[in-house]
Amino acid sequence: MYAKTNVVVLKLSGSLFFSEEFERVVKAISNALHKRSGLQIAIVAGGGSKAREYIAVAAKAGADQATLDEIGIMVSRVNAFVLSSSLGELSATSVPHTLIEVVEAMKGARAVVLGGLHPGQSTNAVGTLVAEKLKAKKFVNATDVDGVYTRDPRKFEDAKRLDVVTPKELSKIIGSESMAAGAYDLMDPVALKLIERSQIHTWIIKCEAKIIEAALLDRKVVGTEIVFE
Amino acid sequence: MYAKTNVVVLKLSGSLFFSEEFERVVKAISNALHKRSGLQIAIVAGGGSKAREYIAVAAKAGADQATLDEIGIMVSRVNAFVLSSSLGELSATSVPHTLIEVVEAMKGARAVVLGGLHPGQSTNAVGTLVAEKLKAKKFVNATDVDGVYTRDPRKFEDAKRLDVVTPKELSKIIGSESMAAGAYDLMDPVALKLIERSQIHTWIIKCEAKIIEAALLDRKVVGTEIVFE
Amino acid sequence: MYAKTNVVVLKLSGSLFFSEEFERVVKAISNALHKRSGLQIAIVAGGGSKAREYIAVAAKAGADQATLDEIGIMVSRVNAFVLSSSLGELSATSVPHTLIEVVEAMKGARAVVLGGLHPGQSTNAVGTLVAEKLKAKKFVNATDVDGVYTRDPRKFEDAKRLDVVTPKELSKIIGSESMAAGAYDLMDPVALKLIERSQIHTWIIKCEAKIIEAALLDRKVVGTEIVFE
Amino acid sequence: MYAKTNVVVLKLSGSLFFSEEFERVVKAISNALHKRSGLQIAIVAGGGSKAREYIAVAAKAGADQATLDEIGIMVSRVNAFVLSSSLGELSATSVPHTLIEVVEAMKGARAVVLGGLHPGQSTNAVGTLVAEKLKAKKFVNATDVDGVYTRDPRKFEDAKRLDVVTPKELSKIIGSESMAAGAYDLMDPVALKLIERSQIHTWIIKCEAKIIEAALLDRKVVGTEIVFE
Amino acid sequence: MYAKTNVVVLKLSGSLFFSEEFERVVKAISNALHKRSGLQIAIVAGGGSKAREYIAVAAKAGADQATLDEIGIMVSRVNAFVLSSSLGELSATSVPHTLIEVVEAMKGARAVVLGGLHPGQSTNAVGTLVAEKLKAKKFVNATDVDGVYTRDPRKFEDAKRLDVVTPKELSKIIGSESMAAGAYDLMDPVALKLIERSQIHTWIIKCEAKIIEAALLDRKVVGTEIVFE
Amino acid sequence: MYAKTNVVVLKLSGSLFFSEEFERVVKAISNALHKRSGLQIAIVAGGGSKAREYIAVAAKAGADQATLDEIGIMVSRVNAFVLSSSLGELSATSVPHTLIEVVEAMKGARAVVLGGLHPGQSTNAVGTLVAEKLKAKKFVNATDVDGVYTRDPRKFEDAKRLDVVTPKELSKIIGSESMAAGAYDLMDPVALKLIERSQIHTWIIKCEAKIIEAALLDRKVVGTEIVFE
Repeated sequence: MYAKTNVVVLKLSGSLFFSEEFERVVKAISNALHKRSGLQIAIVAGGGSKAREYIAVAAKAGADQATLDEIGIMVSRVNAFVLSSSLGELSATSVPHTLIEVVEAMKGARAVVLGGLHPGQSTNAVGTLVAEKLKAKKFVNATDVDGVYTRDPRKFEDAKRLDVVTPKELSKIIGSESMAAGAYDLMDPVALKLIERSQIHTWIIKCEAKIIEAALLDRKVVGTEIVFE
Repeated sequence: MYAKTNVVVLKLSGSLFFSEEFERVVKAISNALHKRSGLQIAIVAGGGSKAREYIAVAAKAGADQATLDEIGIMVSRVNAFVLSSSLGELSATSVPHTLIEVVEAMKGARAVVLGGLHPGQSTNAVGTLVAEKLKAKKFVNATDVDGVYTRDPRKFEDAKRLDVVTPKELSKIIGSESMAAGAYDLMDPVALKLIERSQIHTWIIKCEAKIIEAALLDRKVVGTEIVFE
Repeated sequence: MYAKTNVVVLKLSGSLFFSEEFERVVKAISNALHKRSGLQIAIVAGGGSKAREYIAVAAKAGADQATLDEIGIMVSRVNAFVLSSSLGELSATSVPHTLIEVVEAMKGARAVVLGGLHPGQSTNAVGTLVAEKLKAKKFVNATDVDGVYTRDPRKFEDAKRLDVVTPKELSKIIGSESMAAGAYDLMDPVALKLIERSQIHTWIIKCEAKIIEAALLDRKVVGTEIVFE
Repeated sequence: MYAKTNVVVLKLSGSLFFSEEFERVVKAISNALHKRSGLQIAIVAGGGSKAREYIAVAAKAGADQATLDEIGIMVSRVNAFVLSSSLGELSATSVPHTLIEVVEAMKGARAVVLGGLHPGQSTNAVGTLVAEKLKAKKFVNATDVDGVYTRDPRKFEDAKRLDVVTPKELSKIIGSESMAAGAYDLMDPVALKLIERSQIHTWIIKCEAKIIEAALLDRKVVGTEIVFE
Repeated sequence: MYAKTNVVVLKLSGSLFFSEEFERVVKAISNALHKRSGLQIAIVAGGGSKAREYIAVAAKAGADQATLDEIGIMVSRVNAFVLSSSLGELSATSVPHTLIEVVEAMKGARAVVLGGLHPGQSTNAVGTLVAEKLKAKKFVNATDVDGVYTRDPRKFEDAKRLDVVTPKELSKIIGSESMAAGAYDLMDPVALKLIERSQIHTWIIKCEAKIIEAALLDRKVVGTEIVFE
Repeated sequence: MYAKTNVVVLKLSGSLFFSEEFERVVKAISNALHKRSGLQIAIVAGGGSKAREYIAVAAKAGADQATLDEIGIMVSRVNAFVLSSSLGELSATSVPHTLIEVVEAMKGARAVVLGGLHPGQSTNAVGTLVAEKLKAKKFVNATDVDGVYTRDPRKFEDAKRLDVVTPKELSKIIGSESMAAGAYDLMDPVALKLIERSQIHTWIIKCEAKIIEAALLDRKVVGTEIVFE
């Protein structure tokens, strides 16, 4: 649809940030940047369990959904700042709050880390917007599962992982999901609409250091690719 | 779902801003505010034909979808500023760029006018986010048609207007629509998701001065109401 | 030293935000504001255990002290936003990032909640700066202990609580403490210097709902008062 | 007067943005940048007919002159953003709102596009300020006419184009002109004062692709040069 | 020309800020606000001698005119902040940097103090812009002389003060003046253009406490009034 | 303690800015940057006598200490801007207002000049924070004296300059000093705490061109070095 740049957008599951995998993922991103000199990575940090804890406190006190979204965004930005600090000189220092700031930050850095941008938009949707804006060559969504399944693999034993999936098929699979702030989302309808309108080359993979490094280096990985008819 | 305030969120079709109806709508909003002393109105201006003209120029030059969204937002903000200037002392002077700015501006004014907030979100979705954040008593979407029809009334003679519609039904009706920036949208999937998650009391009416004034004053009007099961 | 206003500055220990006491403290602040119509409260939220968890992750990855301070500030702002959301209409919506923003926010609200402002300054020091700027009638520092002790009461059985203390005496007591980000601090040297230069009327009390409400209403409470020679 | 840099400031008539010439001018600027590797261009977009349409709506509704100026600025910034999007990688992404932002943006880009900066200052005056600030080697003002005439060439047949003109002479020629927002201005008194105080090397040419490209490459073009005694 | 509000715009000569008259002028403004309950004052502080000292240092080091203007603006803002601090609760705390910020600040305060806004515009021009934007009932320019003279009264003994003057006459009188940053200006061409386009009711008086208080209270004062034909 | 970069943080005494030494110091900094190609300098400008004059006016009018600090910061930023303008292309154009802005500015420039950042923090403390954040190889504090003395050398003849000093010793020497805004400070307790927590390599020297140039080039200079046990 458009001329691809050498940028990869990487969405990291919020559950990563207080896990043992965190340090390994920092190393994996660093490795990929050192191995591939032209590569640039825009990283979107999810909110994870810390976001859900904060949201629970505020929801109990009667906060509205838009405010809960804002809390989730604030926490995802702390996650982002911790990651950018850990990447050191490879990453831009500040965490962008708008798409324009993402573009500006990418001009002077190998990596830029951001969290959510705006209420009503999941960090998955942010990943796709960033991919559009940067004309990224691909969008890698590193989640808690290793790809898209026919049904929720944590609930159903007969769930099967799909190697490829069209936006329409994926839309059906995630169809029943709610958009409550902080809820589990493999890929929400908004993100999917954006993937579709710009035919963004998207991979859904497991949030593990080795798989992420391979995906950043365009190697073959286990996961699900979104394809267009 | 939550304690309602005396705020109405009013989305105005972008086509209003260079039509003859514009002055009458300014008068209608002014009337409503004078007649109902406790009433506050958060107004979201659409982009309209001017937005589409600019988007066409940039699209032809190869701009990506996120950039086209940003151009649409910029134009909707000019529309918003022209309206706030026309409302004079009744309205906040500046056009908010974030939800938080909307809340702050509402503290010192009877009316606040904004345009789009963020790429990937239609001005309809902005209206619902503002309604959530302000705990608005209702969201009035003033569009080019006088309500939701079973089919597009401009194409099909047998289209019938619905007095009430559930989010699920409305979702089916708008299901086939694309999200290309500036395209016609009665109510897009994102906006609908937000209406559903917060059970926002929503009315879809025609963008005409008399109907708008009646809706702001909680009088019975022709249009479609979104109801929850 | 200067004409006092009807503003109280309240510093809340960061450990409050995920404890069972949180809801009760929200209620206590709300009560105080309803009982005393002229009262305004500027609340400074500490970072607490969440801040320490984040700081530990970043420190392990090699971040410098100023960056660790910034992470602590970001987390304290999330705490602040959750509290302001919980206070609802009584509180300003946005979390100020500068002293000037604090002053502006106080003009339109009964309460304003902020977190840290700047690296190298603890949230205690922020509390004293805000007290100076707002010419507050007192600064109430709600901490994990019920006042200043001759020695750390958690380590030494013979520690005795002081009813009054001069800045010089307090300075000696806290003299040995490090300023590492997120560390326990009853009152750090910077805060103490500011208390001294403006002779701010300061109380150190335990962070419990009943005691806080009493302190806000100028009732007699268990705690330590800082007095000037 | 000062050491010249390799920067050219180019003011583009607002009438360009919805004309057929637009694409050719984008190409001309792009060509000049490719042909002359050290060249940098700061481009100021005028408001044009779109600005005048918006201003007419707001003026009819009773807006004051400063507000009309602000509307003109907002529209000129949309024009600027459309042009910067069309220039792609050659141009900075964001549209600067202050002189300082112009300087910062010029550090990382071959071209920067801005619109108006401040009420009471035409986009011509903005061009001269930018030229001062960047110590530009010249200021090229691309207008609807091909230079300065002894009288308005659209009204008087005997009007003669001047090859060179002093600020004093030009001042007399434009002397009778009003400063109403959005009005035609070849060069207004403010801009002229700034040209004079810094002896900016200024060319007034027709806003056509070929002439612009030639002017950017320091080739001889039809137009009027402002000279100093 | 437009509906007048109860706002007076007061421009204060920069020479006031380190003179003995300063405290008296603070008192005069305070008196006027206490005596006339509906009155609001937007005050524009000039740069004065401190600005000229800084500008001299930077000019010697080779800074361009736009940068010198920026330095003058920064100093005028320090003057403005010192005055707003001295006015205490009567004045907004922060010093606005844009016209929109002026409008917002006026909503919550009896007085707002600003300095310069933008390079290329004198603080006199800022005064007229603010008067336009706020639809002020008058613009009082408190200068080093007690009105407009036929010639510079400090140089020519036969100079005569004018009770009234038209913009055209004033334009001739100030015609020969340069616009170099920080230079003496009774009223510069830009300011005069703005006064003319909006027919702003303007008084030029001496910067003395008694005269200023009288002018703020609409009493008859020695000075020059600008009248329109 | 951490990996050192090739950055030197240089604090300049505010008394420099209107002295004859100013131009020579500009030249010295410029020389150092030309002689050592990898060197970057973050310069912190003090407020000096201009700051003290402004603070005196505001203090007389009853402003609180936090406001006086803010005035001092504003003046130090004018000093910073004058210096950055004088350094021309070697320096970033804008004066950073936050630590993050310092980091960003350092990416595109050989030198960055800032003033104060936040009330309650001296420009010395700002210097140490910047040193922490940039992992600077050293912090050079150019003051009115040529190092740390056993007693104030301007008052006591038997005062002796120390070649090295530990933070604990220095703390005792400056122990009696007040923190009133704008007061003389060789090194205040806050700055010293930060130097200690990050073991910043600090030199206290006289603010003279030759000594500064030598210090920037890591040559041996007269002064006092802070050493850690």
